[in-house]
Amino acid sequence: MITSTSNDRIKQIMKYRKSAKERRKQGVFLVEGIRMFVEIPETWCQEVYMTEDFLERHQEQIPEYLLSKVELVAPHVMEAMTDTKTPQGVISVVSQPTCSIEEVCMQKEDSEPLILALENLQDPGNLGTIVRTAEGAGVTGIVMSRETVDIYNPKVVRATMGSIFRVPFCYVENLTDWIASMNVREVGTYSAHLQGTSFYDFDYQKPTIFCIGNEGNGLTDVLSQTTKHKIKIPMMGNVESLNAATAATVLMYEAMRQRNS
Amino acid sequence: MITSTSNDRIKQIMKYRKSAKERRKQGVFLVEGIRMFVEIPETWCQEVYMTEDFLERHQEQIPEYLLSKVELVAPHVMEAMTDTKTPQGVISVVSQPTCSIEEVCMQKEDSEPLILALENLQDPGNLGTIVRTAEGAGVTGIVMSRETVDIYNPKVVRATMGSIFRVPFCYVENLTDWIASMNVREVGTYSAHLQGTSFYDFDYQKPTIFCIGNEGNGLTDVLSQTTKHKIKIPMMGNVESLNAATAATVLMYEAMRQRNS
Repeated sequence: MITSTSNDRIKQIMKYRKSAKERRKQGVFLVEGIRMFVEIPETWCQEVYMTEDFLERHQEQIPEYLLSKVELVAPHVMEAMTDTKTPQGVISVVSQPTCSIEEVCMQKEDSEPLILALENLQDPGNLGTIVRTAEGAGVTGIVMSRETVDIYNPKVVRATMGSIFRVPFCYVENLTDWIASMNVREVGTYSAHLQGTSFYDFDYQKPTIFCIGNEGNGLTDVLSQTTKHKIKIPMMGNVESLNAATAATVLMYEAMRQRNS
Repeated sequence: MITSTSNDRIKQIMKYRKSAKERRKQGVFLVEGIRMFVEIPETWCQEVYMTEDFLERHQEQIPEYLLSKVELVAPHVMEAMTDTKTPQGVISVVSQPTCSIEEVCMQKEDSEPLILALENLQDPGNLGTIVRTAEGAGVTGIVMSRETVDIYNPKVVRATMGSIFRVPFCYVENLTDWIASMNVREVGTYSAHLQGTSFYDFDYQKPTIFCIGNEGNGLTDVLSQTTKHKIKIPMMGNVESLNAATAATVLMYEAMRQRNS
């Protein structure tokens, strides 16, 4: 059992928590809490740290391939490793998936591509919620601009509720260039924009890419001018815009409604 | 100009920031930032504190009825008054609106009532986003259980982006009893529930109440058994549930789609 917070591996985990650069360098991220822990895919799991108490309470829920990696830590070490107020007793070091842009954009089973392109989103809770909703709405992939908040940020990971394991995603250097390259294929590219046509007027059963912009500023002009269509979500009252995750939800669920009806 | 953080009124504002009880006792809440500040309804505004620098930069945007209440404070006093990392230079003390449950449920102009009933929501960001989206989707009123997070919490207020001034809302002692009382009228009462009928199968052009539950636990059994209908939002993949604000968004925008088509 690890009983010292100055243990090298424990110190490394604290670095992973704080530093996107450190996570990127080692190609890993952290997963906490029983709920997401038991969903970690077998080939992704590198290290597992838990308290004895946690192991006793949850042993039966934990798949063998995760159990075999368990390293016990003392409760005060677990506390030092987490940033949640009530540590859940388990932290795992998990490999970052490496999806190519081609894999992210592939047709999934019998479903035409339905892709979210996220430009410069900054709020971890927003990004996490979007990933979770995306899985629920049948989104086949998520493409993010390089300036978008790190998807491996512990707050994002937590808010995905496990969808980070199942929705293919990647970052691209230049989101606008990538959208331009999609325009020449048979793909509908749409920017959520306050000056646009009602989003109900389009057919999202075809291959579709929805572009969602930064919380404060929306999409950059260059990106929204690159998409084939500007679409507007109708708003009543004096509301000037919707939250980024809210706008993404409305668009994704409209696509799902069209595809399933 | 107020130059001391031990000024009684400044100390009172710090209490309003921290304590829901103190806000309730005095019937007020705090509004910060230029964007929401200029939207404060005339009869709601009690006190306005700003820095000289802020006044110079924004004087032309500020309505006369707010300007007349301005009290200047020194920059270090403003910093002490706010909890945001970058203080925006203005804080206002605003009266809590007092809507009766009858007012919240009234038909608005030519629109049948479309009401959100929120049971025990705890996340301030979720509640604020829901209020903002509700205005955009044409919701006519919001009814909350007493255990729901305080809508006057500064984080909720900020996330509403001003919709708190325009969407009628109230808290009720017993949300289930109130839903039961609505059932006897010509109102469709719906609980978002994992075991339910697809939410597309109902007509929300009639008077409608959507019930949304707590982030972790969903609706209480007693409330979901009280509504006339349990409705399910279809989900793909392995998603077990949607975030409370996401679920509310999908339902509200489906009602809006039906009402406007």
